[in-house]
Amino acid sequence: MRIRMATWVSQLQDHIVTTLEGLEAAAPPDGEHNAQTFLRDHWIRPSGGEGSSCVLQGGRVFEKAGVNVSIVEGKLSKGAQMQMRADHESIKVSDEPLPYFATGLSIVIHPRSPHIPTVHLNYRYFELSDKEGNPIAWWFGGGTDLTPNYLYPEDASHFHDTLKTACDKHNPDYYPEYKKWCDQYFFLPHRGETRGVGGIFFDDLTSTSAIHKERNPSPEEIFSFIKEASSAFLPAYIPIVKKRLAIPYTEEERKWQLIRRGRYVEFNLLYDRGTKFGLNIPGARVESILMSLPEVARWEYMCPTGAEGSGTREEELLRVLKKPQEWVTQK
Amino acid sequence: MRIRMATWVSQLQDHIVTTLEGLEAAAPPDGEHNAQTFLRDHWIRPSGGEGSSCVLQGGRVFEKAGVNVSIVEGKLSKGAQMQMRADHESIKVSDEPLPYFATGLSIVIHPRSPHIPTVHLNYRYFELSDKEGNPIAWWFGGGTDLTPNYLYPEDASHFHDTLKTACDKHNPDYYPEYKKWCDQYFFLPHRGETRGVGGIFFDDLTSTSAIHKERNPSPEEIFSFIKEASSAFLPAYIPIVKKRLAIPYTEEERKWQLIRRGRYVEFNLLYDRGTKFGLNIPGARVESILMSLPEVARWEYMCPTGAEGSGTREEELLRVLKKPQEWVTQK
Repeated sequence: MRIRMATWVSQLQDHIVTTLEGLEAAAPPDGEHNAQTFLRDHWIRPSGGEGSSCVLQGGRVFEKAGVNVSIVEGKLSKGAQMQMRADHESIKVSDEPLPYFATGLSIVIHPRSPHIPTVHLNYRYFELSDKEGNPIAWWFGGGTDLTPNYLYPEDASHFHDTLKTACDKHNPDYYPEYKKWCDQYFFLPHRGETRGVGGIFFDDLTSTSAIHKERNPSPEEIFSFIKEASSAFLPAYIPIVKKRLAIPYTEEERKWQLIRRGRYVEFNLLYDRGTKFGLNIPGARVESILMSLPEVARWEYMCPTGAEGSGTREEELLRVLKKPQEWVTQK
Repeated sequence: MRIRMATWVSQLQDHIVTTLEGLEAAAPPDGEHNAQTFLRDHWIRPSGGEGSSCVLQGGRVFEKAGVNVSIVEGKLSKGAQMQMRADHESIKVSDEPLPYFATGLSIVIHPRSPHIPTVHLNYRYFELSDKEGNPIAWWFGGGTDLTPNYLYPEDASHFHDTLKTACDKHNPDYYPEYKKWCDQYFFLPHRGETRGVGGIFFDDLTSTSAIHKERNPSPEEIFSFIKEASSAFLPAYIPIVKKRLAIPYTEEERKWQLIRRGRYVEFNLLYDRGTKFGLNIPGARVESILMSLPEVARWEYMCPTGAEGSGTREEELLRVLKKPQEWVTQK
């Protein structure tokens, strides 16, 4: 499974990078920014691990996009095991550090136009072994979520519909459960706002997860769901990019986008577990972890944009961030 | 002491705001930005507390400056007491929430020119009472530190010299001890960098603090040091602003400044205890806490500016951030 997942995420990375480059090349010139390609950066971590960070910066369609694959092996200290045990009761905590293996794909795309939403994807496979190297626990985690600056309800519905279709092929409980989890996870308590209009998110999918109701699917079946869900990323997102690309925007709309990016930075640095876990690993590749941050973000004191009762499009967005909604249109 | 400290920080806030506005009004026009004044925003927190946030945005000299006074009363849960006890052994943890009082002054100034450093100040007084309302512990904390984008060693020395002079009037051990504490506190482990060239920082100054070597100074004596240290802020910083104001700067230097501001955001959201403590308080005034964030920050993947061996001024800065230095020139 280690090799199969690592191979899958590498192939998908390639496909996604090529697709995004195609969009970038085909976009009409804006007189200011040139079409960009991805910088493909293969790296090796001396203490065990390697990866490939693909980054596009300063493009016509995409202001900053990162598509990152990593394969990391290492030892998990007792403290880190205890932390993991909170979510995975089957782990028997050992005084000695235990070997782990992790591989995954991480994507964050910040488009230039305020009318195209930011999108995030992460799917990962994690395996913990005993000190002799025999696997004692494994799980998949991940999800994908959409962060618009301006609300187009039909875009949110398209995104959720596409994810639901992928989920439903494997388990009718996946979508409703992981939609809820996504709304709860991507939440900024100090702002009382979700990060965006959500999507799906789950942290520990394994054969014995409660959601399977004693069906105990094989690793093979779960891997097949992970492939389906991650394959749904491009069909869920790309039509939105194409639809909103030609909409002109004002300086004021651009400013609002940068304010919203400030909130994105707040979530990633204050709350995101992946970011914290990553930065805590000795010898972590900081540039790959913080690739998720936007090129530019902005903070204004008491920013009046989107104030309650203003009847603006900015207020319309804030209203759905304060109260998560159902977006699927399918029965 | 509650009232005296609250009065002191209010007076100092007024003096600092007026001085900064004077600089802003006197600056030569740059053809793009107008001189700005502070927005003075008095607020009341329904659950106990009030404050005054003074914010200047989009000015000629100062891109964003916040000078904030707060007076907060509330109850500290058992969990929060335990956390505090780590630094204050005298606290007897109670199962019931205990009343606390806190007042302080917080300043963050982000100038427009990349040649003028960002500066931060915070001085606060904290008091914990038993459930009958009798004070059981009190302490002062705070400090001030300088964050340049380009190194002017004579500026760093002027800043440290001024702080040392203020410290030495009260205790010859204060400056060396609090200089070291500052370098340790304002450190980004994931970057292997300090935030800037430091200053002084301390978290729990009270009569019985070890630094007093059984002299046990009265609250009065310690308060007098706090007044001295906070009064040294303007003489430590303003001459630097005046000296560097007329230096022209390039687009590239501005970009480097925004990259460095990204690091400032990383420190404040990932590590700063004051920010975390603030955001965790129910009903916290988020806008006042996050006033410290710059107007604009920037993140580039593998930013090549300042690379080792480049012989640039950006590299010169990074070298001193990687290895804190002694800046005082006095014997």
